[in-house]
Amino acid sequence: MPSLKGKDIISALELTREEVEHLYKVADELKQAFEAFGSLDIARNKVMITAFFEPSTRTKISFQMAMARLGGTVVDFLASVSSLAKGETDYDTIRILDGYDPDIIVIRQKKPGFPAEVAPWVKAPIINAGDGYNEHPTQALLDVYTISRELGKVDGVHIAIMGDLKYGRTPSSLSYLLSKFNDITIYYVAPEPLQIREEVIKNVEGKVRYELLNDIRELRGKPVDVIYVTRLQKERLPDPSMYESLKGSYRIDAALLKELFGDNIPIIMHPLPRTWELDTSVDPLPQAKYFQQAKNGLYVRAALIKEILGL
Amino acid sequence: MPSLKGKDIISALELTREEVEHLYKVADELKQAFEAFGSLDIARNKVMITAFFEPSTRTKISFQMAMARLGGTVVDFLASVSSLAKGETDYDTIRILDGYDPDIIVIRQKKPGFPAEVAPWVKAPIINAGDGYNEHPTQALLDVYTISRELGKVDGVHIAIMGDLKYGRTPSSLSYLLSKFNDITIYYVAPEPLQIREEVIKNVEGKVRYELLNDIRELRGKPVDVIYVTRLQKERLPDPSMYESLKGSYRIDAALLKELFGDNIPIIMHPLPRTWELDTSVDPLPQAKYFQQAKNGLYVRAALIKEILGL
Amino acid sequence: MPSLKGKDIISALELTREEVEHLYKVADELKQAFEAFGSLDIARNKVMITAFFEPSTRTKISFQMAMARLGGTVVDFLASVSSLAKGETDYDTIRILDGYDPDIIVIRQKKPGFPAEVAPWVKAPIINAGDGYNEHPTQALLDVYTISRELGKVDGVHIAIMGDLKYGRTPSSLSYLLSKFNDITIYYVAPEPLQIREEVIKNVEGKVRYELLNDIRELRGKPVDVIYVTRLQKERLPDPSMYESLKGSYRIDAALLKELFGDNIPIIMHPLPRTWELDTSVDPLPQAKYFQQAKNGLYVRAALIKEILGL
Repeated sequence: MPSLKGKDIISALELTREEVEHLYKVADELKQAFEAFGSLDIARNKVMITAFFEPSTRTKISFQMAMARLGGTVVDFLASVSSLAKGETDYDTIRILDGYDPDIIVIRQKKPGFPAEVAPWVKAPIINAGDGYNEHPTQALLDVYTISRELGKVDGVHIAIMGDLKYGRTPSSLSYLLSKFNDITIYYVAPEPLQIREEVIKNVEGKVRYELLNDIRELRGKPVDVIYVTRLQKERLPDPSMYESLKGSYRIDAALLKELFGDNIPIIMHPLPRTWELDTSVDPLPQAKYFQQAKNGLYVRAALIKEILGL
Repeated sequence: MPSLKGKDIISALELTREEVEHLYKVADELKQAFEAFGSLDIARNKVMITAFFEPSTRTKISFQMAMARLGGTVVDFLASVSSLAKGETDYDTIRILDGYDPDIIVIRQKKPGFPAEVAPWVKAPIINAGDGYNEHPTQALLDVYTISRELGKVDGVHIAIMGDLKYGRTPSSLSYLLSKFNDITIYYVAPEPLQIREEVIKNVEGKVRYELLNDIRELRGKPVDVIYVTRLQKERLPDPSMYESLKGSYRIDAALLKELFGDNIPIIMHPLPRTWELDTSVDPLPQAKYFQQAKNGLYVRAALIKEILGL
Repeated sequence: MPSLKGKDIISALELTREEVEHLYKVADELKQAFEAFGSLDIARNKVMITAFFEPSTRTKISFQMAMARLGGTVVDFLASVSSLAKGETDYDTIRILDGYDPDIIVIRQKKPGFPAEVAPWVKAPIINAGDGYNEHPTQALLDVYTISRELGKVDGVHIAIMGDLKYGRTPSSLSYLLSKFNDITIYYVAPEPLQIREEVIKNVEGKVRYELLNDIRELRGKPVDVIYVTRLQKERLPDPSMYESLKGSYRIDAALLKELFGDNIPIIMHPLPRTWELDTSVDPLPQAKYFQQAKNGLYVRAALIKEILGL
């Protein structure tokens, strides 16, 4: 029986398929329990600190909701109104937060590798909720959960990951988590300046089949089960002027999907927030799963908390 | 027996007198219970999301306190540190928050009509905590509660609503809620550019008696039970330069009240925050009820939450 | 038996040695209880409002963690997203927050003396969590607790308080609290423009021995048990240009400590956050106690809450 009790969740690369599948079973159970009872009582004596040094809607709120539904307490460290304004380093901040003995710390950080860097000397289990362009393992967990529950399987899936694959942190973590399954095909669809980073390819090489494509139209005629669209990470571009030239360089709407896939439109996913890359004309399609995907974050994160806390 | 269980609270126009009076009975009971026991346990398994896209002190904190005193949990969506910075629409945000299955969502929004717009597809009960200049129904509920508890009745009341009636959202909701009672007289007292909106008059026409006045001095000799002062909504003026010309165009202080009303000063209310329109010289008068009014927000909002959640 | 039940904590000057020692006993007990059980249940029906009008990491989060571990609820008034933007005075804000009947209000304010000013008409017990350059009594409580637990005693201690003693609020409160003990020696070590304020000297005169020094090197050969370093309060300097000229005017690192004290390095404390005045080369020394000191804030503040609430 795999156990995540007391473990850090830093990279999707470190998770095993067994751990992931166990987590998904727990997520299903918690979903039922939340719907039947509202909040539970199992984390009554536990405290989670959320330490988000970068903005967030879904991730932070879904961790907070998950902890609330488990009956635990959240203390939210608000970076923007904190002593960071007084010049404190994030290392000191984390050390102090850890000193307050929370049962778990959820960290979002601009700096790639920050959670890995602090994990060795932080006593509390750490969950990486996004470290710059690097990784976002809990997003990958809910993404693969969504694929699994929508398609009934993960093995054998053909997925197109489209958009800003270079500065985004979800394409990397999603690729890593999918690489734990069998017979996966990934199409990386991005304009050249936004193609997937070398290190990601290196990490999945030999574990998944992949193709690099520049335009969604190149998917015509290929088997595709999932299109996973991502936002251009404006805030991470090395030069702000790049945004204007790349804006609109990829995009899907309902008409394009019908043109390319006819009656066999793949399910559409997106980590959200979206801007221009995913048109609202897609929303009414039965294949639009991104809001369900966001919702799944609640159950998967609750399961993760439950397992890490050993409840 | 009227029931608000599972209902949205979007406009004061939709509430019935029976619902309102039942709510006030519950508010009285909760007030006693809070004073006797501190926090209760009845909302233990419930979660409220507060989603304030505009600043607030009283409203948000009083909803949070109300939920705390009922024993429930609040998850606060902080618009200012959220993905709105990444360009997400408020519609997507609300859809995602709703997907996390909160038991209730409290929304404050700049856009008039936003809560009404999203209510049809949001599963959770919505409470409108202010939508631009349009409405603020829970403020009206605590305003009328205050009138009722301070004067011992609402029927037959003469009230002067004074100040920025055009860009404010409390004069409209208060008028609508008062229109559910009998024999109400409203004096709308405002300089011409700030007079009450046409739509508000249309909605109360035939249900209340009203007069439009430009200056508080015109109240001399008229029966007045309540003066309800409101702040100039600087942030909503179409042209910022209007603020300087309208600043100070209405104002009450203790001396003016004595001059106009002698020994029969009406009770003074204000939704707060106040700036220059309500002088601190009024604070020591026994008729100054605005801090009690703010405090009543706790009981009325707790009652509303209790009824909507069916506790 | 001293009791803090229902009391305001405004100034370290008002605390008695008996109250302080009792508090420390409670802090020790709570530390053990938190380690054994996680969160307790004793404050289940209590609500604390945190009202921080100035930024904070440690103080606010440690109060929130303390309340969470006691089983109570925190409602956080976020000044930066509140109606203060609409022009409300902080006096009105506090009056309204108090009207919601919280069991305790924790206030941080820019204005020296603000908590003392509002305490007479605020019903809830107030804890001063820092009022400008004036005082920070709960910081002093955890500072002296740290000295007591690290050195095994407070009486007879020789302490160097170093850095920005003029604009800082911890040197004053720490001096006041130490003055309740016997046979205390304080070296105030600061460049002339940052030396300790006259009023502080006046308050400890005759109760402690003290010396004013300008440079840490003057401590060579003197008995020193504790060096308490403080940050230059950039945000409180009357003229921003002063910062550049004072930056680096005092500073300790591991090499300097070894040079001055050889094998007898005193314990090093700092209220944190730190910037350039306390080099990270000190962190690995066994005498570095500032992270333990921050951690102690949890236990001491939990004890204070417990005692004030009479739990």
